[in-house]
Amino acid sequence: LAKVIRVGIVGATGYVGQELVRLLLDHPQVEIKALASKSKTGKSFASVYPGFSKFFDLTCVEEDSLKMAESVDLLFFALPHGAAAQQVSEQLLKLVPIIDLGSDFRLKDPGAYEKWYGFKHPRPELLSQSAYGLPELRRKEIAKARIVANPGCYASCAILALKPLIDGSMLDPKSIVIDGKSGVSGAGRSLSLDLHFDECNETVKAYKVASHRHTPEMEQELKSANGKETFPLTFTPHLIPMNRGILVTAYGSLAAKTSENAIGDLYRKSYGAEHFIRLFEPQGQDEYAFPETRFVKGTNFCDIGWRIDERTGRLIVVAALDNLVKGAAGQAIQNMNLLFDLPETTGLKQIPIFPA
Amino acid sequence: LAKVIRVGIVGATGYVGQELVRLLLDHPQVEIKALASKSKTGKSFASVYPGFSKFFDLTCVEEDSLKMAESVDLLFFALPHGAAAQQVSEQLLKLVPIIDLGSDFRLKDPGAYEKWYGFKHPRPELLSQSAYGLPELRRKEIAKARIVANPGCYASCAILALKPLIDGSMLDPKSIVIDGKSGVSGAGRSLSLDLHFDECNETVKAYKVASHRHTPEMEQELKSANGKETFPLTFTPHLIPMNRGILVTAYGSLAAKTSENAIGDLYRKSYGAEHFIRLFEPQGQDEYAFPETRFVKGTNFCDIGWRIDERTGRLIVVAALDNLVKGAAGQAIQNMNLLFDLPETTGLKQIPIFPA
Amino acid sequence: LAKVIRVGIVGATGYVGQELVRLLLDHPQVEIKALASKSKTGKSFASVYPGFSKFFDLTCVEEDSLKMAESVDLLFFALPHGAAAQQVSEQLLKLVPIIDLGSDFRLKDPGAYEKWYGFKHPRPELLSQSAYGLPELRRKEIAKARIVANPGCYASCAILALKPLIDGSMLDPKSIVIDGKSGVSGAGRSLSLDLHFDECNETVKAYKVASHRHTPEMEQELKSANGKETFPLTFTPHLIPMNRGILVTAYGSLAAKTSENAIGDLYRKSYGAEHFIRLFEPQGQDEYAFPETRFVKGTNFCDIGWRIDERTGRLIVVAALDNLVKGAAGQAIQNMNLLFDLPETTGLKQIPIFPA
Amino acid sequence: LAKVIRVGIVGATGYVGQELVRLLLDHPQVEIKALASKSKTGKSFASVYPGFSKFFDLTCVEEDSLKMAESVDLLFFALPHGAAAQQVSEQLLKLVPIIDLGSDFRLKDPGAYEKWYGFKHPRPELLSQSAYGLPELRRKEIAKARIVANPGCYASCAILALKPLIDGSMLDPKSIVIDGKSGVSGAGRSLSLDLHFDECNETVKAYKVASHRHTPEMEQELKSANGKETFPLTFTPHLIPMNRGILVTAYGSLAAKTSENAIGDLYRKSYGAEHFIRLFEPQGQDEYAFPETRFVKGTNFCDIGWRIDERTGRLIVVAALDNLVKGAAGQAIQNMNLLFDLPETTGLKQIPIFPA
Repeated sequence: LAKVIRVGIVGATGYVGQELVRLLLDHPQVEIKALASKSKTGKSFASVYPGFSKFFDLTCVEEDSLKMAESVDLLFFALPHGAAAQQVSEQLLKLVPIIDLGSDFRLKDPGAYEKWYGFKHPRPELLSQSAYGLPELRRKEIAKARIVANPGCYASCAILALKPLIDGSMLDPKSIVIDGKSGVSGAGRSLSLDLHFDECNETVKAYKVASHRHTPEMEQELKSANGKETFPLTFTPHLIPMNRGILVTAYGSLAAKTSENAIGDLYRKSYGAEHFIRLFEPQGQDEYAFPETRFVKGTNFCDIGWRIDERTGRLIVVAALDNLVKGAAGQAIQNMNLLFDLPETTGLKQIPIFPA
Repeated sequence: LAKVIRVGIVGATGYVGQELVRLLLDHPQVEIKALASKSKTGKSFASVYPGFSKFFDLTCVEEDSLKMAESVDLLFFALPHGAAAQQVSEQLLKLVPIIDLGSDFRLKDPGAYEKWYGFKHPRPELLSQSAYGLPELRRKEIAKARIVANPGCYASCAILALKPLIDGSMLDPKSIVIDGKSGVSGAGRSLSLDLHFDECNETVKAYKVASHRHTPEMEQELKSANGKETFPLTFTPHLIPMNRGILVTAYGSLAAKTSENAIGDLYRKSYGAEHFIRLFEPQGQDEYAFPETRFVKGTNFCDIGWRIDERTGRLIVVAALDNLVKGAAGQAIQNMNLLFDLPETTGLKQIPIFPA
Repeated sequence: LAKVIRVGIVGATGYVGQELVRLLLDHPQVEIKALASKSKTGKSFASVYPGFSKFFDLTCVEEDSLKMAESVDLLFFALPHGAAAQQVSEQLLKLVPIIDLGSDFRLKDPGAYEKWYGFKHPRPELLSQSAYGLPELRRKEIAKARIVANPGCYASCAILALKPLIDGSMLDPKSIVIDGKSGVSGAGRSLSLDLHFDECNETVKAYKVASHRHTPEMEQELKSANGKETFPLTFTPHLIPMNRGILVTAYGSLAAKTSENAIGDLYRKSYGAEHFIRLFEPQGQDEYAFPETRFVKGTNFCDIGWRIDERTGRLIVVAALDNLVKGAAGQAIQNMNLLFDLPETTGLKQIPIFPA
Repeated sequence: LAKVIRVGIVGATGYVGQELVRLLLDHPQVEIKALASKSKTGKSFASVYPGFSKFFDLTCVEEDSLKMAESVDLLFFALPHGAAAQQVSEQLLKLVPIIDLGSDFRLKDPGAYEKWYGFKHPRPELLSQSAYGLPELRRKEIAKARIVANPGCYASCAILALKPLIDGSMLDPKSIVIDGKSGVSGAGRSLSLDLHFDECNETVKAYKVASHRHTPEMEQELKSANGKETFPLTFTPHLIPMNRGILVTAYGSLAAKTSENAIGDLYRKSYGAEHFIRLFEPQGQDEYAFPETRFVKGTNFCDIGWRIDERTGRLIVVAALDNLVKGAAGQAIQNMNLLFDLPETTGLKQIPIFPA
C-alpha cells in the first residue's frame, strides 16, 4: 500500500495556495488535512473558489501552524513575505518539515532581507538550515532539509535558463541582462489599482526596474563557475496582459566563439535526464523554435530555447514556465516528492491546456 | 487487469481533436493508437502542438478510417460538417463503433441537413442508428449505439439548462429565448479574418443571428413535456474575446407562478445524481450565485444557476461549460465510457484551472 | 467670435470623469475651469492619468459645487449614486445648469430610488425639473432644462434600440427580453475582487440578474405606444473581458407579421436625421450585417441592426455603443451642446479607433 | 485661406493604411483624394472598415500610382516590403513626393536588402534620395526630400530612446541590448496561424530572434557619437496579447559613472522642445515613473523613462509608442507636415484613449 502524505497549507486562499490545492488533489499519495487562511477563516474552500465544488470542501481554519503540525506530515506556507518567518520556529520544525512558497528562507545572507525586503529577518539562524528548492540544482540538499525555500517564479526561470551556461563558463557573467515578462497572477489576489482589469488589460509596462526582489535569489544561485564569485545581474520584469505564464529573455556575451550546437550540448548534459526541462533546439526560424508560455500552461515544465546573435557575439536564451506551477505550487510538490522519497514527477504529469 | 480501449482519432489536429488527445492521455484505460489529419499527415503530433512534447509523439496518418478501424476499438471523428458522413459506412460500423464530434449524425431528420447545413446527407439511413450523445439525457441509448453523435457545444449547454424545466412543464415553450456567449476556440483553428486576433479581441458581436446550426439540435432534444411537439426556439450566439468557455442565458415565461426553490427541486431531481452537473442555488445576490465560465475551465462540468424575475414572470437560467470539454472532447469521453461500460467519470476528474 | 462654455467637473478622476476631460479638450468651444475629486484633491490631473501629460494639468480641488459654480457656466457631476443628489440644490441651480452623469435624477418616481437603489432621495422635488438626457428622444426638453439626467449606459443602448419599435407598435411589449454585454470599464475604477484582472479576464458571467438599476430607466422611457402604460422588462447584464463597449441584444415578439424592410422603415423614419445613430441594414449573413462594439470605440455612435427570426415570429435587435462615450461622457457633451444651443455634433466627431 | 493638401494612399486597407485614413480625416488641411487597395479594389472603404461609416466612403481603386499622382499633392505607400520599390520611379517622383510607410527606402545600403529582406532592391539609385523619416532627428532633410522613408515601429521607439545617449557618449555602444514588446496589430491584417486569436491570446513569445528587420534601421541611425562607426545591436522582439502598442526596454553599460539626473539633462537637451516626446522623470519607484503603452494609445507620442542600475553600472531605458501612430501613420503625417511646411503637430493632437 502506498504511503499517504498528510499535508497542511498555511495561506491557502491566495492564487498560489489555491493552485497548490488543485495540484495536490491530483497527487495519488497526498491527503490535504488542513487549510489555514487569515482572511477566510471559517469559510469553506469551495465557497472561496467555486470551481472546486464537488472536489473539495475543507473549511479554512486560523493560521496556527503548531496546531496544524500535530496532524500533518508536512506544512506548506504560501504567505506574503515576512509572515512565514514569524511562524516557523525550531519547535515547529521538530514536528514537521516545511516548504515555504514565500521568500522568507530563500536568501542565505540575513542582511539581504534588510536590503531587498526592508525588514530585519526574525530568525536569521534558520537561514542556513534551509535548502533553496530548485530540484534540478539542489535535489540532494532538498531531500534532507527541514526547510525548503521554494524559489521565486522569475528566479526559477532565469536560474534554470542560465545555470548550465555559467557553470560551463560560456558567458561573461558581467554581461548578463535578464528581461522578464509575467502574467498578472504573479502579483497575487490582493487588490491594487495596477491590477484592476482596465489598468493592466491592453497595455504593457516595466516595473520594479533595477529593484525586483527575485534578483538576489538569481545572484545567489548563479555564482561564477568556480562557485565562489557573486556577480550582480540586471533584471527587469514586465507585466503582460494575460493570466498566467512567465517568459524570460536572457542576454549574455559569449566568453568565446562557439556554436548553437555546443550550447545545446551543455544544456543536454545538464538537463537531458530532467523530466521537467524541455529543450527547444534551434531550427532556423521555425515556427516553434522558441518556448512560448502557452506550451507550459498548467504544467511543471520549464522550456528553454537559445540562439547565438553572430553579429554581436551574444547568446540569447528564452525560457518559459507557468508562474503558478513550476514557478510556485508545482515546484513545491516536486520538492515534497523529494522530501518523502517519491519519484519527482508523482502528481505532476499535467499536460498543457490549450487554448486556455 | 483493467481493460484497455484502443482508440483512433480522425481529424486530430483541430482544437477539438487536440483536446481529445489531452484528455485521453489522462484516461487510465485508453491507448491512442492512431491519429489522422488531412493537413498534417506525416507530421508528429508534438510538432503541431509543442505543448505535448514529452507526453506524446504519434505521427499523423492519412484519413483512412477503414484502415484505422482494424487496429482500434473505437474511432472518434472531429471533422468539419459533411466530412464524417462521407467516411462512416455500414462496413466501418461493423468493425468499430464511432463517436462523431461533428454534426453529421446529430439530427434525425435528413431534411434538416439541407435546411440548416446546405447539403444533402449522404447516408440518411444511418441517422436513425445514431444516439444523440448527451449522457445525462440518453445514457441507455448511447451505451448500445454504434454511432454516437456528440452534441454541439451551445446545444449541450442549452439543453442541459432547459430540459428539466420543459419536462416539468414549468415554462411556456413558445417563450424561450436563448442568448449564447462563446470563447473563440469554438470557431476552430481554420484561419479567417473574423478570428484574426485584432478583429475579435476587445470587441463583442452577435453572429449567425436566427440561423445558427445548433438551433435544430436544441429543438430536437427540447420537445414538449409529452415528447411529441417540437417548438421553435430563438437562439443568438455571441463571440466573446476569450479562448474558452460557453455561457448560455436562457429566458422563458413561467407557465404558472412558482418559487426559485421549486425550480431547484426540479433540477435536483433531474441532476442530483449527475456528477457533471453542478447547481448554483440562488442566494440573494451573492458573489457566486451564478455560473461563470472560469469555474468550469478545462473540466467536464456544466454549471447551472437560475433566478425568477418576479416583475415579469420570467425565469432566467444561466449555464456554463467548457466548449472543448463538456461541449466536445470531454463529453465524447463520457460517451466512450458508456460504450465500454466504464464509470462515466473515468478520466474526467480534472479540476478547473484558475486563473487561466 | 465663438462663445466659450466654461465648465467644471465634480468627480473628475473616475473613468467617466476622465473620459469627459478627454472629450471636452477636443471641443472647440469649451474651457475646463475646475475639476473636483474627493480622493485626489490637490493632485494634478496628469499625475492621476499620465496620458494627459502635455495636454492638461489642472489640479483637482475639493467637491464644493457652490464655489465651483461661481466661475463656470455648467457643472458636470460624475459621482456614485446618491452623491450628486446631496450637492444639487435650488441654490446651485440658480447659478448654473447641471448635467448629472450619475443616476440621481434619472427616475421621475422618487419611490423608485428606494426600491432600486435602496436610499430615500434627498431632493424628490427636483426630479420633476430634470430632463432625461437622451437627445434623440428628448432634445427639446433637454435644451431648456436646469438638470439633465444623463442616461445609464445600458439604458441608452436599449432605449435607442427599442423606442421606434414600441412607438410603432411593432412588438408585444410584454415579450421583451434585453440581454446586455458590457466591457469592464462600465464598473468604474473602484477596486473590487470581481474587477481584479485575473478574476474577470478570460471568463464571462451574468450579474445583477433581474435586479440591475438601469432597468427602471428603460421602463420609464419605453412606455407603450400611447405613452401611458409602463410594462416591466427583463434585463440581464453580462461582464465581458474587454475594456470598453456595450452590446445589447433585445428580443421581442412581433405584434404582426412584417418584414425586415418594414422594420428598417421605422428606424429610418425615427433616426434618418440622427447623426449619432447608424443603421446596419440586414444583408443576408454578410460579415458586417450587425453592430460590433469595435465599430463604435471612442465615439458617440449607437449602431443598430436587426433581424426577424421567421420561425419564431420574434425580432432580434442588436445595438452597440461605447459605454464611456454615448453611454456617458459623449452623450453628456451632446446634452451640453443642446443646453448652449450649439450643433449637437460639436466636439463629437471622433472616428472609431481600430484595432484598439 | 489655409492650403489643402490632396493625398492618395496606396495600400489603404491594411491596418496602417486604415489608421492613416483615421488620422488624415482629423487633419484640418488634408483631403483624401484616392485610396488604392489590391485586395479591395471596387469596394467602398466603409464596407471594409464599418467604423468609418458616416465619415468617409471613398471607393478603393487599383494600385496605379502614376494615375493617382495626377490628382494629388502627395502619395503615401503602405505596402508589404518590396512592393513600393516596384512602383516608385523617377517619373512618379517628378509628379509627387512620396512617404513610404513600408521598409523599401529606409536602408541606405542596397546590400542590406539582400541580407535582411532577401531581395535585390529594384531601384538602388533612389535610396540616396530618401530621407529617413524620424523628424526629431532629421527634420531638415525630410522637409526637402522627395522620398520619405517612414521608420519601422520598433526602430522609431528604440532610436528615440537611445540616440541622445549615444550622441552624448553615455553608453558603451557594444553593450546595447534592446528587448521589444509589441501588440499584435504590428503584424498586420494578413491571416496567419500565429495571429489567430487562440494562438496568441494569453501567451507571450519571442520571435525573429537575432534576425528582425528593424535591426539594420536601428544600427544605421544609431551610429557612434562621431557619426562614423556602425556597431551591431542585439534586438529581440516579443509578441504581446494586446491590440496596440510597443514597449522597448533598452540596456546599456554606462561609459562612466553618472546620475539619473545627468541622463535626464541629456534627454531634456535633445527633446525639451519636442512636442511628441514626453520624459518620465525617475521618482523613486512611483506608480507612474515609467512609460506604459496605454499612456500613448491612439497618439503620436513617444514616452521615455530611465533608471540606473547602480549595482551593475547599466542604464535601463523604457520607451513606449503606439505602433500604428508614432510607429507608422502618425509619424507619416508628421513627415507630411514637414514636407508641406505646416507645424509638425497639425492634425496630431489626439489625447490617449483610456481605458481602451
